[in-house]
Amino acid sequence: MDYQQLIEEVYREVQEENLRGKVADYIPEIGNVDPNQFGIALVDLKGNVYGVGDHQIPFSIQSISKVHTLTMVFNVFNTKLWSRVNVEPSGDPFNSIAQLEYEKGIPRNPFINAGALVITDALCSKFENPIDQITDFINELSGATCVKINPEVQSSEKNHGERNTALAYFLKSFKNFNNPIDQVLEVYFSQCAMEMSCVDLAKSFSFLANDGYSIFANRQILSESSARRINALMLTCGFYDEAGEFAYRVGLPGKSGVGGGVAAVMPHKFSIAVWSPELNEKGNSVKAIRALELLTDKLSFSLF
Amino acid sequence: MDYQQLIEEVYREVQEENLRGKVADYIPEIGNVDPNQFGIALVDLKGNVYGVGDHQIPFSIQSISKVHTLTMVFNVFNTKLWSRVNVEPSGDPFNSIAQLEYEKGIPRNPFINAGALVITDALCSKFENPIDQITDFINELSGATCVKINPEVQSSEKNHGERNTALAYFLKSFKNFNNPIDQVLEVYFSQCAMEMSCVDLAKSFSFLANDGYSIFANRQILSESSARRINALMLTCGFYDEAGEFAYRVGLPGKSGVGGGVAAVMPHKFSIAVWSPELNEKGNSVKAIRALELLTDKLSFSLF
Amino acid sequence: MDYQQLIEEVYREVQEENLRGKVADYIPEIGNVDPNQFGIALVDLKGNVYGVGDHQIPFSIQSISKVHTLTMVFNVFNTKLWSRVNVEPSGDPFNSIAQLEYEKGIPRNPFINAGALVITDALCSKFENPIDQITDFINELSGATCVKINPEVQSSEKNHGERNTALAYFLKSFKNFNNPIDQVLEVYFSQCAMEMSCVDLAKSFSFLANDGYSIFANRQILSESSARRINALMLTCGFYDEAGEFAYRVGLPGKSGVGGGVAAVMPHKFSIAVWSPELNEKGNSVKAIRALELLTDKLSFSLF
Amino acid sequence: MDYQQLIEEVYREVQEENLRGKVADYIPEIGNVDPNQFGIALVDLKGNVYGVGDHQIPFSIQSISKVHTLTMVFNVFNTKLWSRVNVEPSGDPFNSIAQLEYEKGIPRNPFINAGALVITDALCSKFENPIDQITDFINELSGATCVKINPEVQSSEKNHGERNTALAYFLKSFKNFNNPIDQVLEVYFSQCAMEMSCVDLAKSFSFLANDGYSIFANRQILSESSARRINALMLTCGFYDEAGEFAYRVGLPGKSGVGGGVAAVMPHKFSIAVWSPELNEKGNSVKAIRALELLTDKLSFSLF
Repeated sequence: MDYQQLIEEVYREVQEENLRGKVADYIPEIGNVDPNQFGIALVDLKGNVYGVGDHQIPFSIQSISKVHTLTMVFNVFNTKLWSRVNVEPSGDPFNSIAQLEYEKGIPRNPFINAGALVITDALCSKFENPIDQITDFINELSGATCVKINPEVQSSEKNHGERNTALAYFLKSFKNFNNPIDQVLEVYFSQCAMEMSCVDLAKSFSFLANDGYSIFANRQILSESSARRINALMLTCGFYDEAGEFAYRVGLPGKSGVGGGVAAVMPHKFSIAVWSPELNEKGNSVKAIRALELLTDKLSFSLF
Repeated sequence: MDYQQLIEEVYREVQEENLRGKVADYIPEIGNVDPNQFGIALVDLKGNVYGVGDHQIPFSIQSISKVHTLTMVFNVFNTKLWSRVNVEPSGDPFNSIAQLEYEKGIPRNPFINAGALVITDALCSKFENPIDQITDFINELSGATCVKINPEVQSSEKNHGERNTALAYFLKSFKNFNNPIDQVLEVYFSQCAMEMSCVDLAKSFSFLANDGYSIFANRQILSESSARRINALMLTCGFYDEAGEFAYRVGLPGKSGVGGGVAAVMPHKFSIAVWSPELNEKGNSVKAIRALELLTDKLSFSLF
Repeated sequence: MDYQQLIEEVYREVQEENLRGKVADYIPEIGNVDPNQFGIALVDLKGNVYGVGDHQIPFSIQSISKVHTLTMVFNVFNTKLWSRVNVEPSGDPFNSIAQLEYEKGIPRNPFINAGALVITDALCSKFENPIDQITDFINELSGATCVKINPEVQSSEKNHGERNTALAYFLKSFKNFNNPIDQVLEVYFSQCAMEMSCVDLAKSFSFLANDGYSIFANRQILSESSARRINALMLTCGFYDEAGEFAYRVGLPGKSGVGGGVAAVMPHKFSIAVWSPELNEKGNSVKAIRALELLTDKLSFSLF
Repeated sequence: MDYQQLIEEVYREVQEENLRGKVADYIPEIGNVDPNQFGIALVDLKGNVYGVGDHQIPFSIQSISKVHTLTMVFNVFNTKLWSRVNVEPSGDPFNSIAQLEYEKGIPRNPFINAGALVITDALCSKFENPIDQITDFINELSGATCVKINPEVQSSEKNHGERNTALAYFLKSFKNFNNPIDQVLEVYFSQCAMEMSCVDLAKSFSFLANDGYSIFANRQILSESSARRINALMLTCGFYDEAGEFAYRVGLPGKSGVGGGVAAVMPHKFSIAVWSPELNEKGNSVKAIRALELLTDKLSFSLF
């Protein structure tokens, strides 16, 4: 399989289709990126990296970081964690508070905002300097000092963070929040503001394609079984209320972010990151999703 | 891989755990089965059949038939169908009507009752004698004249069918229902009342493990891509509001029924049917789910 | 108080304001009425009738008949009834089925469709010929043979009745429905199709302004306390999801219908019926509501 | 009418019925009151005060203060206010956040917590020292320096205020909140912690029975029309999700608080305050509601 040729083909075809969406504009720092950027990076199990387009330009990974933070607490909190957050797909938007009320403070899954806040809260219980720890961990996974926290994005997330703050207080009212809210939100907004390129992002997901072993970190990050479970979670919950559509059309476990990035894995084959800022109405990158659909069609394999 | 030894081991371990649930009792005919029955049948890609326990006793497949009916219209209605029914997981119970109201008459997916009614309605538009067609189709997939419609169950489903009737009228009020309601419900209650053994059920799912080709029917049932999509749908939506949990713990595409059956596939490896009548509170067979979890653990492979 | 002068003033002022809405169009028979019709009739406690505009033209009273049917079963079923239907206002639209699901088959109040179906079901348990009984009862209240069932409207309601049929089956699935669904719906669609003029409608509500005694029927229809309770119900639940707005702006107990009619009472003073077909987006007659608001302003009394 | 004899009779009969409920326990300071306390005070239009039982003991008025704060901004913000908060009854509990999400940040009415927070926010925009202003205003209405803020209750409300804080941040995310959240919550928790006796509370509601004129403040507090509108609001929204039941059984505009108090008015007759700490499951005082029901039965008049 010539992966380089494959992703170049996909890249070209997607560009020709000229699909359009809308750059996220809930904060100006995200809204001002060049909407035409588009990059793909694929990393195979041996650590070979293939790239095309804007694959080396850092972008705001946003919610994709929820996979990294989940991984960090998965090991230690495994059993306990699942009493605080569920593993079921959510029919509601990623920042819905209604569902949290109906389900008495237990978020549907760790990838909607409420669930990710519980994860970050658990992280703050585990680590003294959680922001440094997250950065170090992702750097380790990528085999490079690649993660930068964009201070303007971080600060802007905070200034527009009323809804996430409401979620945090709501979780606390159900006693599903242990650390000071301000402190956890500081970490949360920092992880959302992390920037890295498609190449580094694909590398950081490599262990999930490889039964939990990272060729870049050179160690077993999670047990095989835990890595598989994170993949299952990404497949059922990784794309907001479009997870079913993505599984149906693409069939790979993955996670998207409002910055326009998508990271995904084909277990035992490769990890991949695609980025293009324009989003569909469900908040997922139009070009990234199309690229992954074309890619699995051409490969004629998916999970299924 | 010695599948016979594997399923016997799984069978024995599950029996030893002595897990209990509650037989479905919404109709007496289902409530009166012997709760201790438990069978497993596995069919590999060559058509070899492995079985243990009550794997040859016919049971009420109930909602598992929704996979067969979806397959029957998938080919023809492919594109059109997805304007009438969505492919997203549902957070609500399988017979919820509230979600249907919020989403203006478009069911969440083809495996919740509202969605399955749309599928059966499409089937009634396509075939003159839909009940015979369903029976013939499943027989063909199983390579045997195995399907029986239990007339007591059929008639009891009908007599307790107010909620499904409400769903049908509600769909019609949104113009998402084309045939006479009584006629479609007749078919729907018949497909729910179909009985077959684990062996025949596993055979009937074999094409989904085999890129759409049925070794028993000796023909391509669906295109490779369509078969993969049905698998994706089963993974995200096949277990009511426990789909995420099943994906997380087991990681195979599958479909359960309130009769206590579960049919699942490991793509490119095998199809499998497990049956035991006692259900957990989400309506899935306690022993069947545990058996599949043990099986994937022992095989140490799942989709992911 | 010169009521004739008062309602003429109100009539003139409303006409000058030239408010517009939209005639209900869910069935053609209702959609085809002349939208410019507008009439007011007021009946004082002595039985004097005052009228202006199209106050003698019969129109489709639709949901206003729910007050009459509730009155018919109130007496007998008083206590039992309130285990089958609640008395709380509903935040949802009049024909919502979601709320019925959340509240396990107990409708919010007797004036939303689900609740009115329970009332009509109770009526069918009580009377052998319920349609005749309703007609006779309203005629008696009005002191005139005035009620006509429009057969085209009745039949069209039935042909577009999927949502109400869904509600009925849904109620039955919760065991909150005792009679054959077809039979109850026949009665329900007939009561919706009743036609009478503002004058007769205002007379039929007179007993509610008069502590339960009808000057036209010449008998006590309900006890003082029961009549007061129906008024309380109309105030909190009589205007779909605009009940609070009506209480706030007008302050009289009343009931509206999608035919554009509103019947209301000022306890110990008068009953009143106003009719004009164009509706606001909540389904209440634009001119009728404005007329009642002006009237209570001019009288400078409301309930409060 | 001998009001003193009347309320004594009511008091005695309620005591004999020995109804039990449960003292609110969301904060210890409220949970520790003597549950057997029970008092009634009635104030007629001339300012005569009638009392029985614990009518002179100050208690925590809690949500009843929402009527006072609404009155304070009603005058000035009248029109604008209703673009920020609705006047419809809510089917959901008083502190629900789901409804706020569905209705995009516009609270259902000013008496649920979200709506009351908008009112307090408006108050903070209007006054420099809002807590003093509220205290002074209620004192003026009562003709006495009677209001005390219990510092333990205030501080405990704050320490258990996560849900209200979540509501405030959620309102802010919809841009329906103008002042710093901490500052508004400080005022909000203070108004909840106000204590006064039944006598003083009944006096403070007197203007609502008297077309907006307070005999104790010796001035017109609100226009006749505005006073009537607040009464309408209390009738449809004053008792959480039991407003319909209260209107149905009692038929007076009123407002309850979790401290066990209820203040109500019979327009053009009297205002009344009843207090007893044990609550029913909807959060309203068991004895206070029963007392008001008996009272209107005996008087044989209600609004209706």
